[in-house]
Amino acid sequence: MTSDFSTLLAPRSVALVGASDDPTRIGGRPLRYLKEGGFKGAVLPVNPKRETVQGLPAFASIAALPVVPDTAILAVPAHLTRQAVEDCAQAGVKSAIVFSAGFAETGADGERLQKDMVSIARNSGMRLLGPNCLGVFNPSIGYFGTFSVVLDNQLITPGPVGIVSQSGAYGAHVAHLARKRGLGISHWVTTGNECDIDVAETIDWMVQQPETNVIMAYAEGVRDRDTFIAALERARKAEKAIIFMKTGRSDVGAEAAASHTASLAGSDAVFDAVLRQYGVYRAATTAEQLDVAYACASGIYPPSNRVGIFTMSGGFGIQLADDAEAAGLDVAPMPEAAQGKLKEMLPYSSPRNPVDATAQVVSDMDMLTRYVRAMITEGGYDIFTAILGTGPSSKNFADPLRNALMAAMDGQDGKIRGLTMSAPDTVVRQYEQDGFLVFEDGSALARALGALVWLKQSFERNRNAAEVAQGQRFDMPKGPLSEAQAKAILGQAGLAFPGEHLVPVGGDVGEAASQLGFPVVLKICSPDIAHKTEVGAVAVNVRDADAARQAAETILKSASEHAPDARIDGILVAPMAPDGVETIVGVMQDPVLGPVVMFGLGGIFVEVLKDVTFRAAPFDEAEAMRMIREIRGFAMLEGVRGAPPSDVEALARFLSDLSRFAAAHADRVESIDLNPVRVLPRGQGVVPLDALIVLNEETANDRD
Amino acid sequence: MTSDFSTLLAPRSVALVGASDDPTRIGGRPLRYLKEGGFKGAVLPVNPKRETVQGLPAFASIAALPVVPDTAILAVPAHLTRQAVEDCAQAGVKSAIVFSAGFAETGADGERLQKDMVSIARNSGMRLLGPNCLGVFNPSIGYFGTFSVVLDNQLITPGPVGIVSQSGAYGAHVAHLARKRGLGISHWVTTGNECDIDVAETIDWMVQQPETNVIMAYAEGVRDRDTFIAALERARKAEKAIIFMKTGRSDVGAEAAASHTASLAGSDAVFDAVLRQYGVYRAATTAEQLDVAYACASGIYPPSNRVGIFTMSGGFGIQLADDAEAAGLDVAPMPEAAQGKLKEMLPYSSPRNPVDATAQVVSDMDMLTRYVRAMITEGGYDIFTAILGTGPSSKNFADPLRNALMAAMDGQDGKIRGLTMSAPDTVVRQYEQDGFLVFEDGSALARALGALVWLKQSFERNRNAAEVAQGQRFDMPKGPLSEAQAKAILGQAGLAFPGEHLVPVGGDVGEAASQLGFPVVLKICSPDIAHKTEVGAVAVNVRDADAARQAAETILKSASEHAPDARIDGILVAPMAPDGVETIVGVMQDPVLGPVVMFGLGGIFVEVLKDVTFRAAPFDEAEAMRMIREIRGFAMLEGVRGAPPSDVEALARFLSDLSRFAAAHADRVESIDLNPVRVLPRGQGVVPLDALIVLNEETANDRD
Repeated sequence: MTSDFSTLLAPRSVALVGASDDPTRIGGRPLRYLKEGGFKGAVLPVNPKRETVQGLPAFASIAALPVVPDTAILAVPAHLTRQAVEDCAQAGVKSAIVFSAGFAETGADGERLQKDMVSIARNSGMRLLGPNCLGVFNPSIGYFGTFSVVLDNQLITPGPVGIVSQSGAYGAHVAHLARKRGLGISHWVTTGNECDIDVAETIDWMVQQPETNVIMAYAEGVRDRDTFIAALERARKAEKAIIFMKTGRSDVGAEAAASHTASLAGSDAVFDAVLRQYGVYRAATTAEQLDVAYACASGIYPPSNRVGIFTMSGGFGIQLADDAEAAGLDVAPMPEAAQGKLKEMLPYSSPRNPVDATAQVVSDMDMLTRYVRAMITEGGYDIFTAILGTGPSSKNFADPLRNALMAAMDGQDGKIRGLTMSAPDTVVRQYEQDGFLVFEDGSALARALGALVWLKQSFERNRNAAEVAQGQRFDMPKGPLSEAQAKAILGQAGLAFPGEHLVPVGGDVGEAASQLGFPVVLKICSPDIAHKTEVGAVAVNVRDADAARQAAETILKSASEHAPDARIDGILVAPMAPDGVETIVGVMQDPVLGPVVMFGLGGIFVEVLKDVTFRAAPFDEAEAMRMIREIRGFAMLEGVRGAPPSDVEALARFLSDLSRFAAAHADRVESIDLNPVRVLPRGQGVVPLDALIVLNEETANDRD
Repeated sequence: MTSDFSTLLAPRSVALVGASDDPTRIGGRPLRYLKEGGFKGAVLPVNPKRETVQGLPAFASIAALPVVPDTAILAVPAHLTRQAVEDCAQAGVKSAIVFSAGFAETGADGERLQKDMVSIARNSGMRLLGPNCLGVFNPSIGYFGTFSVVLDNQLITPGPVGIVSQSGAYGAHVAHLARKRGLGISHWVTTGNECDIDVAETIDWMVQQPETNVIMAYAEGVRDRDTFIAALERARKAEKAIIFMKTGRSDVGAEAAASHTASLAGSDAVFDAVLRQYGVYRAATTAEQLDVAYACASGIYPPSNRVGIFTMSGGFGIQLADDAEAAGLDVAPMPEAAQGKLKEMLPYSSPRNPVDATAQVVSDMDMLTRYVRAMITEGGYDIFTAILGTGPSSKNFADPLRNALMAAMDGQDGKIRGLTMSAPDTVVRQYEQDGFLVFEDGSALARALGALVWLKQSFERNRNAAEVAQGQRFDMPKGPLSEAQAKAILGQAGLAFPGEHLVPVGGDVGEAASQLGFPVVLKICSPDIAHKTEVGAVAVNVRDADAARQAAETILKSASEHAPDARIDGILVAPMAPDGVETIVGVMQDPVLGPVVMFGLGGIFVEVLKDVTFRAAPFDEAEAMRMIREIRGFAMLEGVRGAPPSDVEALARFLSDLSRFAAAHADRVESIDLNPVRVLPRGQGVVPLDALIVLNEETANDRD
């Protein structure tokens, strides 16, 4: 795989099919950019109508080329592309970029054309990028295989940021923003229709490039779960941040995504949870995506979230403290003694944190250095931030301020240094060269620092985590499955259900109930009745044997009325579960991301607030614990109104066990509903009160 | 008041006390800026040690000036300021700006100094700005009464944006950002310690200036409720937007705010609600504050939230649709017929909305015009947005694209036109001159457009709203008040409580209960027992007369054990209320913003989710309805799990009536708790089940 990308992004020779002499045309721009970029490989224009193209000798066809090029850029219209791909395949070209639109995104005809093209390429082992894409570039070797107008006025410099985008326009925009920010780019890939190479595979390759520290990705959805998750795992292991822009959040957006590309967008909530699970930072806006990538560019992450805020204006300090706290940073106060020391230096200063030296400090830069040094060394902050406002835009202050801060930071290399200031780019670049992260907006700085902390935590967790053990595989009967069957199967997988008796029709329910001990719950047991309460086939809090017999009769009668054709296995007799917090747990198959486990609180939390969360299966108990903690109503599980704390440890085990079961049976299990799962007080475990497994061979059963 | 500000911001003559010949010093900068700005009024440097200052004749003292200046800028240290204020007051100067720090923000001594200074000024009728501020400017007359370095490299041009900031540094930063964005400023005022003139009064004045369309305000808190709310009301009436940055959201921030200024920060949640109530847009970040002010600068607001999104890249379109929906805009699809028309023009386009013309449209600008015109006229959008990406940064596209869009917009003057694009400032300014709002970031554009819609709705509501009638004033006994007293008083104010009997100790509770009809609730009635349930002094669901007598006995026994000194008025007998949704309603006195009404859902909603909201009293039913709708659990009141919709109309009346009572008795009532208030199904009203009024003369009563 790696070698395919090498020909795509670092070819020794490139053919440009449809090469144009006009450097503003799609077939002309790549040539112009390759020349301007000083690309050292062979550039071979293919154009049967011309002797030369933009000063280079042109060739009539791929077959006429003096060498077999590593890669080809196909800048011909859709209807000529198939032939061009075939020519390349025959010649043994290893990869090709297809610029043209007019394929799968336009409907059935286009889709056929695209499929044809792919099978031709597959047969020869040639990889394809696109169609309907803007191409690639690799500034470190001056390779610009793109017709994007973003390079019209200025090329891109090399650097630590990899960019991969399904949307060419988005990729171009982000490249432009990175350039404006002074951020260099290691590789830039736009994947378009993704007939072959997709965003996931590109991420996987970029992670392995030593020059890439951080990857900015854009996608409306992904195609293949396994490639995608493998890429995310590789990135986390390499401790390289992925900053993701996933669109299609809203209903309108998702609809537009579906009409725009051939990819399945999947459920946004599931996608969102999976990114979180694998330590991918999802940006809410493009500006945030760029800000976080900028902060990650050096590959340095803070050991903790303790942030010291140095300011010369109280107002700015308060604002940054607000933002820092919102971003999950710890604006820890300076130790009392250290506050005294700072007060001695500058009596009017407020040295708590934010540490407000007041504007008077700028009149004495040596004082500023001593003051800031004392703040950093005694505050124990892993993140230092300073608010410089418009100060550095003044010629009188730009250098002295920077020098004073640098002197204060001397010997503090491991610390993150963030600044907010407004100044010309040239001044900003000087600060950056001294290792400062420079932001104009304090909120943006705080968010980016929060992202660094979050990413660091994810990397560290992963370092210490063992691989999630594969779930055991169990035989399952052909469905539909009754509640008792579902419980038996899940019980094998380690999910403990309360002891209960299945009493066949005609058996003595009163006797079975007496053996269990009262009060009991009675439920119909039938593979054909999924929603028992709705058909009056459940009785709770049954207090003696006679009542049990009577209730069983009522249940059977009700069931036969509502579902006359249902197979009846009997009556399930179960003990009343002890009090606890009601939760709901489920498994579903995301069309793209496969088996996912859902968790939420029961009752109004799920019904009114839709307070649920997801994880891709399988996952370990630690991940399950994070899942549990991220629901809004988590406090319910900590104990409210005098209730004892719930057994969240047992709940985490339960979720993790279920996830391993779900992963091991992804091919068979369509969905699982465990609703409710009652979480008992700490030490007493969880009690799932119902179980429903829907197998994927089931279709039109009478389940209601 | 207006005339005071005229001398402050448009003086005919200004004295600069502490004038310096060095144009980089605090006493030198204003002089330099006034000269550079071409200020036409008299500039009178006061410096006893020099003949001239920066080329202007200097005077030894205020008394030695040839004329009495309208205003004075005091650029002397704190210890000399008092004398300077006295000199100005004696000479009859009408206003003065005090730059120096070292007053109330530094402790008790500084506070005394500040108070002295204020009383000197007050005696002569002179208004003071500051101390500890950066001054003011009014670019339209070249008046720059500030020492801010933000003017070091470039002055500020006049325009429609007023800026008022408690923090000088923040104000300077925002002025810098506005300048960078090409936004002109009408007036700029920094209020610092606000010993006299504050942010609220400044807003009030700015609203009245015809050249000001929008006001950007920064404050950590406000000092005076009445001035503040009057200013907000005036702004809303004038339909001028206020974009507010209020800091001190977080605990750390609020602590820092308290240490930084002498102002009371108040509860952030209350402040936040009051801004919403009065139609002030609260920005979360400085970038957002600027973005929204920029969008408001023209003073044009969209009649509806229907937005059409034109894009040449599907990816960007999806992203903007996501953002638009999140910002409360309606990404309404094009009518089917119109979609067909657009498809005819460009067969590959996706004309639903986002309307994706694909990149091919740029090859034919006439087509682009026809296509966009059809989209606007047939889509019925009040907001048109187009995503141009890096297109306009290319010299080949900047003008043709703009001209093509302008041609399409011909005759569509009332529509908001928003663009996202990346291009040099000169290109952006050209688009802006043609009436386009230009953003680099789509999320920022969507948020700003959402803000325009929100502001417009607030203006319109206000146009149609009658003034809230003053609540009637009732006599209240000296506290503490018992539940029965509280209910009686609130009952007078129109809040209906269920009929109930107060049975004195020794009376027949069984008889009273029988008269009401079973089941009933029994509660102790005592002014000294606020939390009845906790002391076992409540019995619910009492089903017959004997049970009632027995329960009453238990209650009296329990009360005498837990609160032996409590005065006992007797036992309250009330009917069991019908089923409904439990809510909590309360009144509290915000230290700054005065009487506020709180509303939330009862039970876990308030205990776990803190799902409550506030409004300043008084307010009308429509405002109460918005209050009700903004809690997260609002769906509970619409009916969940088959429950009928609740009587939110009655609830809104209840809240509004309570707010008028709270406002009319703000001097007496410390707090009111109505918990729970049960909201019955639509048409059946609300039932407050308990009432507690705490009067503010109460102090250390035994209330638990």
